Amino acid sequence: MLDFLYKLRQIQESRRSVLCVGLDPDPQRMPQHVLDLYPLPEAIEAFNAAIIEAVGPAACAFKLNLAFYEVLGWQGWRALEATLALIPEDTITLADAKRGDIGNTGRMYAEALFETLGFDACTVAPYMGRDSVAPFLEYPGKAAFVLARTSNPGAADFQERDCEGEPLYLRVARQVAAWNEGTPGAAGLVVGATAPEALAEVRATCPTLPFLVPGVGAQGGDPGAVMRAAATDDGLVLVNSSRQILYASDGEDFAEAAAREAEKLRAALDNEK
Amino acid sequence: MLDFLYKLRQIQESRRSVLCVGLDPDPQRMPQHVLDLYPLPEAIEAFNAAIIEAVGPAACAFKLNLAFYEVLGWQGWRALEATLALIPEDTITLADAKRGDIGNTGRMYAEALFETLGFDACTVAPYMGRDSVAPFLEYPGKAAFVLARTSNPGAADFQERDCEGEPLYLRVARQVAAWNEGTPGAAGLVVGATAPEALAEVRATCPTLPFLVPGVGAQGGDPGAVMRAAATDDGLVLVNSSRQILYASDGEDFAEAAAREAEKLRAALDNEK
Repeated sequence: MLDFLYKLRQIQESRRSVLCVGLDPDPQRMPQHVLDLYPLPEAIEAFNAAIIEAVGPAACAFKLNLAFYEVLGWQGWRALEATLALIPEDTITLADAKRGDIGNTGRMYAEALFETLGFDACTVAPYMGRDSVAPFLEYPGKAAFVLARTSNPGAADFQERDCEGEPLYLRVARQVAAWNEGTPGAAGLVVGATAPEALAEVRATCPTLPFLVPGVGAQGGDPGAVMRAAATDDGLVLVNSSRQILYASDGEDFAEAAAREAEKLRAALDNEK
Repeated sequence: MLDFLYKLRQIQESRRSVLCVGLDPDPQRMPQHVLDLYPLPEAIEAFNAAIIEAVGPAACAFKLNLAFYEVLGWQGWRALEATLALIPEDTITLADAKRGDIGNTGRMYAEALFETLGFDACTVAPYMGRDSVAPFLEYPGKAAFVLARTSNPGAADFQERDCEGEPLYLRVARQVAAWNEGTPGAAGLVVGATAPEALAEVRATCPTLPFLVPGVGAQGGDPGAVMRAAATDDGLVLVNSSRQILYASDGEDFAEAAAREAEKLRAALDNEK
């Protein structure tokens, strides 16, 4: 199976894009005419189908946050599986699931995301330590992006606390890099766009791990600052944007508006490389 | 709606049980005759139905770890919903989901677990801080058990590190207690049975929060040590056991064997009160 980093680099270079589009379908913000045409789980599939087709040329990856699907129960999970089937083979699929559990259960979560659903990558929570992260690193061709310094206000509560001489997020980053040695899968880190100095610090500590960077757009992060802090020849980045693209318009033109917004962000990120 | 702690105390007293049974159906360990009778998602429902009926009288709660259902995709989620429908009203249902995400997404996870699925309680990962925990504390009658000191070997990697003068797990426990002040829901903590001294320490710090205690049985924790360290008049505990009960026998008598094992553990825990 193709190495994850090799595949990611190929897609990013051929499409000149580090943009990851978050497929987070929120019925409260979706266009009314889509909601009028279909009942809820199908409306989400129809909305996602239009977005995938429209923004596909500008995106190297799609990130699906599982909360938006789980809120609809098993029918939401079916819509998640249907959405995945619509994403072209040459685009990375990322499960934003933030799972993490003890060994035998962690292996089931990894199997659920990488085999049952077939995602290329996922996000993982580090709090439970090595045996909760390792199962995700055992899959050749797959990647696990572990939360390091997230983009939300709560990041200050634990991640930024001094942990034996360094902020906890930096310790997590170093540990993940060490755990990654010799595994068949690829480890990455989640580092938010809202703290560019943390981005630069984690990049200096982990020069070759890919970063998934949320927080650009609606959350206030600056695309240029992200690229300058974290994108290097050896260190790939995936810059995620969800709401700013998905809900660029709530009219009949929502897909075209999303495509314009995605292309604008793709170009802005590409210019900073 | 009935307060969660009031409901939990009533059930525990009337049934003389602090036992929580983990409904973690693993096809690799389920009795062969059940797997021969039904295709996979239905086999899980049949297995769970027999276990719920057999161990119900000894259990105050059932804990469903979502990994065991998600590994089967949307059909697994349907089996999860079908299983929940079988659990009697006077028994606590707990989603072992270890979710945690930024504010707007955290609210969707809370809605998925408490409203769509209708669980009474769930487990939550603390790494992302207050805004990832708070959405779960906003539901009257519901409870969120936040990971503090878990039962797995990886607990040593971050949870036990010194964080500004105390182990990280103790800081998390104190913060959760503070965040819980004035919320309509109830906060609890997950503290593993494999570290009784940590259990006692967290209990001293958080005298009134309920604890969910995994790690008894297959993971090696001692029921008596758990009760002495953590169960007080003000501090309720839920002691979880999964594999030791579910897979007490892999023959036709699996339900009776599970019932015997559950009753033995219930009585052992009750004697230590």
